Amino acid sequence: MMRIGMLTSGGDCQALNAAMRGVVKCLYNSGVGGELEIFGFNAGYKGLINSDFRMLTGDDFSGILTKGGTILGSSRVPFKTIDEPDEKGNNKVESMKHTYHKLSLDCLVILGGNGTHKTANRLREEGLNVITLPKTIDNDLWGTDMTFGFQSAVDVATHVIDCIHTTADSHGRVFIVEVMGHKAGWLTLNAGMASGADIILIPEIPYHMDCVINAIKRREARGSKFTILAVAEGAISAEDAKLSKKEYAKKLEKLPFPSVSYEVADAIAKKTGLEVRVTVPGHMQRGGSPCPYDRVFASRLGAEAGRLILKGEYGVMVGYKDREIVRVPLKDVAGKLKTVAPDATIIKEAKMLGISFGDE
Amino acid sequence: MMRIGMLTSGGDCQALNAAMRGVVKCLYNSGVGGELEIFGFNAGYKGLINSDFRMLTGDDFSGILTKGGTILGSSRVPFKTIDEPDEKGNNKVESMKHTYHKLSLDCLVILGGNGTHKTANRLREEGLNVITLPKTIDNDLWGTDMTFGFQSAVDVATHVIDCIHTTADSHGRVFIVEVMGHKAGWLTLNAGMASGADIILIPEIPYHMDCVINAIKRREARGSKFTILAVAEGAISAEDAKLSKKEYAKKLEKLPFPSVSYEVADAIAKKTGLEVRVTVPGHMQRGGSPCPYDRVFASRLGAEAGRLILKGEYGVMVGYKDREIVRVPLKDVAGKLKTVAPDATIIKEAKMLGISFGDE
Amino acid sequence: MMRIGMLTSGGDCQALNAAMRGVVKCLYNSGVGGELEIFGFNAGYKGLINSDFRMLTGDDFSGILTKGGTILGSSRVPFKTIDEPDEKGNNKVESMKHTYHKLSLDCLVILGGNGTHKTANRLREEGLNVITLPKTIDNDLWGTDMTFGFQSAVDVATHVIDCIHTTADSHGRVFIVEVMGHKAGWLTLNAGMASGADIILIPEIPYHMDCVINAIKRREARGSKFTILAVAEGAISAEDAKLSKKEYAKKLEKLPFPSVSYEVADAIAKKTGLEVRVTVPGHMQRGGSPCPYDRVFASRLGAEAGRLILKGEYGVMVGYKDREIVRVPLKDVAGKLKTVAPDATIIKEAKMLGISFGDE
Amino acid sequence: MMRIGMLTSGGDCQALNAAMRGVVKCLYNSGVGGELEIFGFNAGYKGLINSDFRMLTGDDFSGILTKGGTILGSSRVPFKTIDEPDEKGNNKVESMKHTYHKLSLDCLVILGGNGTHKTANRLREEGLNVITLPKTIDNDLWGTDMTFGFQSAVDVATHVIDCIHTTADSHGRVFIVEVMGHKAGWLTLNAGMASGADIILIPEIPYHMDCVINAIKRREARGSKFTILAVAEGAISAEDAKLSKKEYAKKLEKLPFPSVSYEVADAIAKKTGLEVRVTVPGHMQRGGSPCPYDRVFASRLGAEAGRLILKGEYGVMVGYKDREIVRVPLKDVAGKLKTVAPDATIIKEAKMLGISFGDE
Repeated sequence: MMRIGMLTSGGDCQALNAAMRGVVKCLYNSGVGGELEIFGFNAGYKGLINSDFRMLTGDDFSGILTKGGTILGSSRVPFKTIDEPDEKGNNKVESMKHTYHKLSLDCLVILGGNGTHKTANRLREEGLNVITLPKTIDNDLWGTDMTFGFQSAVDVATHVIDCIHTTADSHGRVFIVEVMGHKAGWLTLNAGMASGADIILIPEIPYHMDCVINAIKRREARGSKFTILAVAEGAISAEDAKLSKKEYAKKLEKLPFPSVSYEVADAIAKKTGLEVRVTVPGHMQRGGSPCPYDRVFASRLGAEAGRLILKGEYGVMVGYKDREIVRVPLKDVAGKLKTVAPDATIIKEAKMLGISFGDE
Repeated sequence: MMRIGMLTSGGDCQALNAAMRGVVKCLYNSGVGGELEIFGFNAGYKGLINSDFRMLTGDDFSGILTKGGTILGSSRVPFKTIDEPDEKGNNKVESMKHTYHKLSLDCLVILGGNGTHKTANRLREEGLNVITLPKTIDNDLWGTDMTFGFQSAVDVATHVIDCIHTTADSHGRVFIVEVMGHKAGWLTLNAGMASGADIILIPEIPYHMDCVINAIKRREARGSKFTILAVAEGAISAEDAKLSKKEYAKKLEKLPFPSVSYEVADAIAKKTGLEVRVTVPGHMQRGGSPCPYDRVFASRLGAEAGRLILKGEYGVMVGYKDREIVRVPLKDVAGKLKTVAPDATIIKEAKMLGISFGDE
Repeated sequence: MMRIGMLTSGGDCQALNAAMRGVVKCLYNSGVGGELEIFGFNAGYKGLINSDFRMLTGDDFSGILTKGGTILGSSRVPFKTIDEPDEKGNNKVESMKHTYHKLSLDCLVILGGNGTHKTANRLREEGLNVITLPKTIDNDLWGTDMTFGFQSAVDVATHVIDCIHTTADSHGRVFIVEVMGHKAGWLTLNAGMASGADIILIPEIPYHMDCVINAIKRREARGSKFTILAVAEGAISAEDAKLSKKEYAKKLEKLPFPSVSYEVADAIAKKTGLEVRVTVPGHMQRGGSPCPYDRVFASRLGAEAGRLILKGEYGVMVGYKDREIVRVPLKDVAGKLKTVAPDATIIKEAKMLGISFGDE
Repeated sequence: MMRIGMLTSGGDCQALNAAMRGVVKCLYNSGVGGELEIFGFNAGYKGLINSDFRMLTGDDFSGILTKGGTILGSSRVPFKTIDEPDEKGNNKVESMKHTYHKLSLDCLVILGGNGTHKTANRLREEGLNVITLPKTIDNDLWGTDMTFGFQSAVDVATHVIDCIHTTADSHGRVFIVEVMGHKAGWLTLNAGMASGADIILIPEIPYHMDCVINAIKRREARGSKFTILAVAEGAISAEDAKLSKKEYAKKLEKLPFPSVSYEVADAIAKKTGLEVRVTVPGHMQRGGSPCPYDRVFASRLGAEAGRLILKGEYGVMVGYKDREIVRVPLKDVAGKLKTVAPDATIIKEAKMLGISFGDE
C-alpha cells in the first residue's frame, strides 16, 4: 500500500491540475494502481494543519489537464507565520507532522512557489518525505530554468497588451499595463517583449523618470503617436531603490495611488501633457486554461515526481535545467530567489530591439 | 466623380475598420471605382475641423477586416464643446462646414456613438449630407438593436471573468470585475451572464448593499466558496440614485477609491470578512481583433451605407432592427439613449437563472 | 414532486450544457428545488429507448456553462429508422413511451436539430409532454432566427480561415476551407464573410465552375496573389443540381475525392495552373467552449424552458424571433428546413462587398 | 553604407515577420540607421534568382511583430532542383550570386528550414556572406534546441485537439487528428501531450496496428468511451518501415486514402467496429498570429543576427542552446535533421503518463 498526500499552496496558477494529474497518472500506470491511496489536502497547508482532506482516485484527475485553478484549493498559509501558533493555539509544524504520521503517509507532494518551498523544506528537516513541484507565474524559483504557470501568464498578459495596442494606436495615448510581479520581472519582461511594449519597468532595474520621459519623447519625435509601458507591480524608481525596505513600505502606504503604475502614469501625464491610461489585468493573469507549453511541461514534471516516489527519492524539487528534467535538493531551493540580472543577455537583446528600461 | 469624407469619432472599438472597408468595397464594386475620391479625416471631427485628412484608395482598406482600432484615428472632440470656439478662436461647426464645402464632398460617412451622433445630426441640420454607422461597445444607441463593437467587448469581458473564475474557485474569494459602461448595462449584463457571474450590478438597476451581501451569504450557505460580481463602471446604489446628478458627482469625487467597484469591494469585505479582489480590464475591452459576429455585422452595415451613398439617400444612421438592416433618421437617433429596462425579459431570465442584481 | 427527463440528440455542439444548466437553474430557483427529480438519458433517444439514465442534481449542472459537448452524451438514433424495430426487435416509439410512463415523467426536455425535432414531434403526437431547445451549428431549424451552437461554430470556422489567410498570402496560393453544412449554408456564409473569404459556395446557390474561375482571375488581374474559398460540405454545381437526388448520390459515391471541396480544388488547379490546398477542420467546428453569445442565448432559452415546465405548457420548441424568446408549436417545426434564400439581403450585401458565390 | 538582402524561404510559419523586425530594429537602433539599405527579395530564393526585390525601410517592419505569414512572401524554390537550370535556362546558383554582387550586398539574411539551409550553405560556399535564422513548425533543424514557428504550431494543433475532445466525449467515438510533420514528430508529440491525446503516432516510432488496437481496448475496458489519436503526417507502420524509400513511396501512391491517417482510421474501424473520424487542420498549423513564446524567441534571434551583421560575422545560423542564443556554423547545420529519439526522456515521460506510441 502506498499513501500519498498532495497539496497546492500559495497564489494559484495555471497547470497545477496538469501537474497533479501527471503524478497520479504515472503512479497508476506503474502498476501501483490498486495499492494507491491519495489524500488531497484542502486549501494548501491549511488542510495539512487541520487534517482537512479528501480521498482521491484516478477519476478525480481525469479531464483536468486543461483546467485552470486547482481541484484542491489553495491558501497562503502558513509561510510567514509558520512559527506562530494557529487559531487553536497549536504549533503549526507539529500539527502538520501529526497529520502526516496519523495518516501514515509515505510522502507529501507539494506544489508551490517561494513561500511554499520554505515550508516544504522545513517539513523535510522535520523528517517528512517531501517532493515539490515548481509552480509560479513569476518564474522566480531558484534551481529551475522554468516554473509552470509562467508561460500561461505571459500569454494572458501579452493578450491584454495586444488589445491595448489597437486602442492606443487609435487614440494616440500613453498606456500603462500593470503586470504581476513584486520581486521578479520575468513576466513583465516577456509579456512586454512579446507584445511590442516600448518601455518595460521591472523591479530588478530601477527606473529614472527622466529616462522614461525621454523614451516617450524620442518616440514622438520619430512620429509615433502612442507609447505602451509594461510595468511590473514591483517596479521601483532609482530614487526609491535607495530607501530602506521599511522606509519604502512607509512611502508606498502614503501614495495617493492604488499602485506604482498609477504613480508612473501621473508623472508622465504631468511632464508630457499626454493622456495616460492604466490597465490592471490583475488575477486574470493566474487564471484560465494553461497554455500548451505549460500543459506539456507540468505533465512531464508530474510524471518525474511519480517516478521519484516509486524509487523513494525524497527531499527534492523536480526542476528543469537545459531542457532536461532534474532533481534539485530542497535545501538548495528554499529561501532563494531567481531574478532578472540587469545585464542578462535577454535584457541586452531587448535594448537592441529599442526597448527602454528607464535606466539610460 | 464622387467625393466621400470619412471619420471615426469617440472612444474607439472593434470593427471600425471592418465597417469602413464595407463602405469602400461596396462603392468600388458598384463600378464607381475610378471615379471615387475618399478623404479620411484624422482623429475624428478634429480632422474635419482642421482640414486634416489623407486621400485613401482601395488598398488602404485591404486586409483591415480583422484589425482592431481605426486606421483613421479617433478623438472625443467636439461633442460637449461643440459651441465653444476651438483653439484658434473659430466656430467648430463653421470650420467643419468650411472643410466639407472646400473639398466639394458629396457626403460624410461618420462612425461613432452617442456623442458622435449629436454632432452628426447638427451637421445634417447645417445642410451637409451625412450617413452614420452605429459604433459602440455600450450598445446604447437608440434606433438600432445592435451596435458593432458590442459583441467583441462582450467576448473580451467574458474571457476576463472566465480567467478570474478559476482563481476565485481555487482561493475561495469574492472577485469583482469592473466592466465598461457608465450609463448602460448591456455589456456588463451580457458578459456577466456569459461567464456565470453570480451578481451583476448595472446603472439601470440601483443596488442595495444588503441584497448584495445576502446573495453572497446565500451562496455560502449552499456551499459555494466563492462569488463573482460583474460590476458596471456606472453601477450605483439605491441610496446614491436618489441624489441629484451634481450631488452624486461631488460624492464620487470624494470617494477614497478609484471607482465604484472598489467601494463595493470595501463594503463586502467589511460586512462579510471575506477576501475581495478587484480586476479592471479597462480599455482592453475596446481592443483586439473584432469577433466574427461584429465583422459580419459591421461589413453588412458598411455595404448598406455604400448603397445609400450610391442612391444619394442621406441624413440617416444605418441600423439593425429585427435582424434586418434599416435606415433610421438621424434626428430620431441623436440625444437618445437605449438602456436596459429593469423589467426587460432578459433581466427576468437572468433572475430565473439565479443571478442577483442587488435589488431584491 | 416534479419528474423531468432530459436528453441531447444528434450531432453535438457547443452550449448544450449551458442550455441544460439554464433549465435546471430555473427550476431550482423557482422553489421547486427539493421536489425535483431529473432523469438524464444517456446518448440521446438511445437512453430513452433502453431506459438508460442517470439521476442528476443541481451539482451536476454546476460549472458546465462554459463546457463544450454534452454531459449526457449524444447519438443520431433513431431519426431515420424510427419505425424500424431496435436491436431487440422492439418498436422504438413504444419503448420510449414505456420508459416515459414507467418513470412517471412530467415532461421531456429534448435538445436537438432537425432530425431530433421530427422524433420529438412524434412523441408529442403520442401524448408525451415535450419541450425542445433548438441546437445545431447549422442554424437551419425552422421557426427560430437562431440556434445555439451556430455562433460558436462560426467563431471556430472563422478562426481557421484567419489562420489560412496568412499562409495563403505568403505563398500566393488558392486555399479551400471546407466548412460544415450539407443542406444549409448559414455557417459557411457567415464564417466566409467574417474572415474575408473571396468566394463562398453554399448548397442553396449552385455554382458554375466558370464563374469561380473568373472570380479567381479577376483577383489575379487586380494584383491579388491569393484567393480563399469557403466551401460548404454540401456545395453543389449548377450541373449537378439538375440531377435527381439518387443520381447525385451515385455520382458522389464515384467521386475520386473525399468530398466536393477536393473536386472544386482539382478543377481550379487544372483550369488555372495555380497551387490549390484544401483544409478540413471537420468536427472541430462542433467542439470547444461555447462563445459568449451562445452561452447567453442558450441560458436564456433554458430558463424559458424552465418557466414553461413550471406553467405546464408543452408541445413547443423554445425559439428566438426578432430578439425575443418565443414558443413555437412543435408540429410547425418538425420536418421543415430554414435555408439561405439566394436573394436574401445578406447575400446581396455579401455581393456588394465583392464576394463571389459562383453564380454570376 | 550597409546593404542587406533578406528573404524567407520554404513553407511559411508564424514569427517570420517578428524575426525580420528584430534584425531591422537592431540595425536601426545601433545607429547604422540612415546608412542602411534593405533589399527584401520576393518569394524566397526565387526573388534572389530573378533580382525581384523591394526596398524596405523601418516603417515596413513596424506593427508586424504579431502578424502571421511573411511580408516578403515565400516559395519552395530551388532546394531540390538547385542544380537544374531555371526557366530561362540559367544556372540558379550563378543567378543568385549575380544578384548579390550586382546589388553590392554586404550580406544575406535568410530565414528558413532544412531545405533552405542547404541552399544557404551552398551560397556560403560560393563566397557570399550569409546569416540564417531557424524557421520551421517542425522543430527539426539540427544545431538548435528550438525553431520559431514550432510553439505557435503546437498551440494551434493543441487547440484543434481540445475542440475535438468535447465532441469525442459526447459521441463516444475514436478521433484522429492529423498533425503536420513528415519526418519529425516534435509537433505531434507536443500537441498530443498538451491536449491529452491517448495515442501518439510519429515517424520516429513505427507503430504496430495491434498495439494501437490494444491501447483503444484497454481504454474501453477502463470505461473510457472515446479515444483520441494524434497522428503525424509521416507516421509509419513497423511493417512499412521495413520497405525501401522507393517501395514505400510506391505503396503510398496506391493507397486508396488521402493520407496515412485515413489508413489508420480504416484499420481501427475494421478491427474494433467503432466509429472513427479524421480531422485534418492542415495549413492552419502554419498560420495565425505567432504565440508570445515565438514572438520573444524570434525577436531575440533577430536582434542577435543584427549584432552579428554589425560585427561582420557571417556563415552561421543563429540558434538556441541551453536557453542561450548561440551561433552555429552553417556547414554543420545543412543537411542534418533533428528528430525525436525513440528513447528520449520526453518519450519515457509520455509513456509514464499512459500515452501509447503503438510500439508496445
